[in-house]
Amino acid sequence: MKSVENVRYKATIAYDGTEYSGFQVQDNGRTIQGEIEAALKRINKNQVIRIHPSGRTDAGVHAAGMVFHFDFPASIPQEGLFKALSVLLPADISILELEQVEASFHARYDALAKTYTYRVHNHAIRDPFNRKYVLNHPYKMDEMKAKEALDIFTGTHDFTSFCSIKTVIENKVRTIYEASVTIDEATNEWVFTFTGNGFLYNMIRIMMGTIIEISDGRMDSTKLPEIIDAQDREQAGKTIAAHGLRLEKVYYNEAELIDLIARNDSQKDI
Amino acid sequence: MKSVENVRYKATIAYDGTEYSGFQVQDNGRTIQGEIEAALKRINKNQVIRIHPSGRTDAGVHAAGMVFHFDFPASIPQEGLFKALSVLLPADISILELEQVEASFHARYDALAKTYTYRVHNHAIRDPFNRKYVLNHPYKMDEMKAKEALDIFTGTHDFTSFCSIKTVIENKVRTIYEASVTIDEATNEWVFTFTGNGFLYNMIRIMMGTIIEISDGRMDSTKLPEIIDAQDREQAGKTIAAHGLRLEKVYYNEAELIDLIARNDSQKDI
Repeated sequence: MKSVENVRYKATIAYDGTEYSGFQVQDNGRTIQGEIEAALKRINKNQVIRIHPSGRTDAGVHAAGMVFHFDFPASIPQEGLFKALSVLLPADISILELEQVEASFHARYDALAKTYTYRVHNHAIRDPFNRKYVLNHPYKMDEMKAKEALDIFTGTHDFTSFCSIKTVIENKVRTIYEASVTIDEATNEWVFTFTGNGFLYNMIRIMMGTIIEISDGRMDSTKLPEIIDAQDREQAGKTIAAHGLRLEKVYYNEAELIDLIARNDSQKDI
Repeated sequence: MKSVENVRYKATIAYDGTEYSGFQVQDNGRTIQGEIEAALKRINKNQVIRIHPSGRTDAGVHAAGMVFHFDFPASIPQEGLFKALSVLLPADISILELEQVEASFHARYDALAKTYTYRVHNHAIRDPFNRKYVLNHPYKMDEMKAKEALDIFTGTHDFTSFCSIKTVIENKVRTIYEASVTIDEATNEWVFTFTGNGFLYNMIRIMMGTIIEISDGRMDSTKLPEIIDAQDREQAGKTIAAHGLRLEKVYYNEAELIDLIARNDSQKDI
């Protein structure tokens, strides 16, 4: 029997995934979900609260805008719940936003799209300060080659070649609205940004393994359409390190997403 | 008897001090010096090599440009030594530069000045990605008040009020050439920069504790000249956390230092 005094919350959090075995609760290892549910349980007089995320992130993957929903007694005011979470969560997880939503809101089913970034430090000398957030790649990368690869990935494709063979989902067709890169010449940091209606297991890490091979000249971008068509994981590049990957944003607002798609289309015309 | 085949090297390194008990070798705990000497010993066929730093950094303090010198057999080429250090040093220490210098060069005695930064994240919500490099301060800080305090610190003063009572050095007069702050409005990160001819034990951390008290309104900047004059550690603010502090650069070139001083003087006239 569902309690009538519950309200549904949508929460947005940031976390450093370095010391976690991923988002989802599992038998072994510390998880983001485990930490959040432990904090909510303490606030809720030791009664278990389940959270429902927009999706999972793997071990070592970070987030600047992960979203989840949960139901919580209305007797605790929203402001107090936010402050209690701020205090109880460990230093590597921050609660950014908390809002009451309709009881029909679902963090996963209602998600329209997600934006991820993958960061690469393209330099022969490692930077000790970004080592947990940025992949160091010591071989010179070419911006034009990277952009050729990103353009080929943009659009609707069957991404079978770019997902872990462990994936059980049958439909591997996904649409990438935005695949871009910006380079900070001062720090040699390349930030790759991907926005899509969904991403398969390991998909961005395999795409990025392939993009880096193309960028540093080990593979020619003209091979990429063939690799996509092959629908064979063996054809694509390797799954690169998790620590360069960060979930930036989950889209629930259609107007906002249409705006992003329009902006990307107009940039291409320039 | 000193071996005639030795050459003297000047090395510049960056490190994340989070997991170290400071720079200098000590009985307990991992140190930066300990890691570097262990790597040099491996390269030098198990013969001990001592390194001589420009100064020390405390537990948890970082460096983007720490300098040290050491003598090493000339039989190993410089390029090979650099590459071996790159490979053997742990991921949180990077060798940035290695150059042969005159046998008379001394990293500490020849140092003319040093630049340190102290980073503050002035926001109510913690950022999980900078937590080991930036102090989170949740109470609103005022830029004008911070600059008033920085201007008072600039110049030559007896810094007795701003150094640990454990200091054994008698002469506590130091000159600060530059004490400035830049604010990144997008990230709410305040970067305080201090360049001086020398810094006493805990000096920047005590100065920053006081500057933050002035910036957020707990102390009035007009009290600062009195605190300096008192020459009493009890009068100043608290010693704030080590993790916001980073040694940026050690100056050995007089022309470069004069240039920096001139640039700061001209900025004040504007």
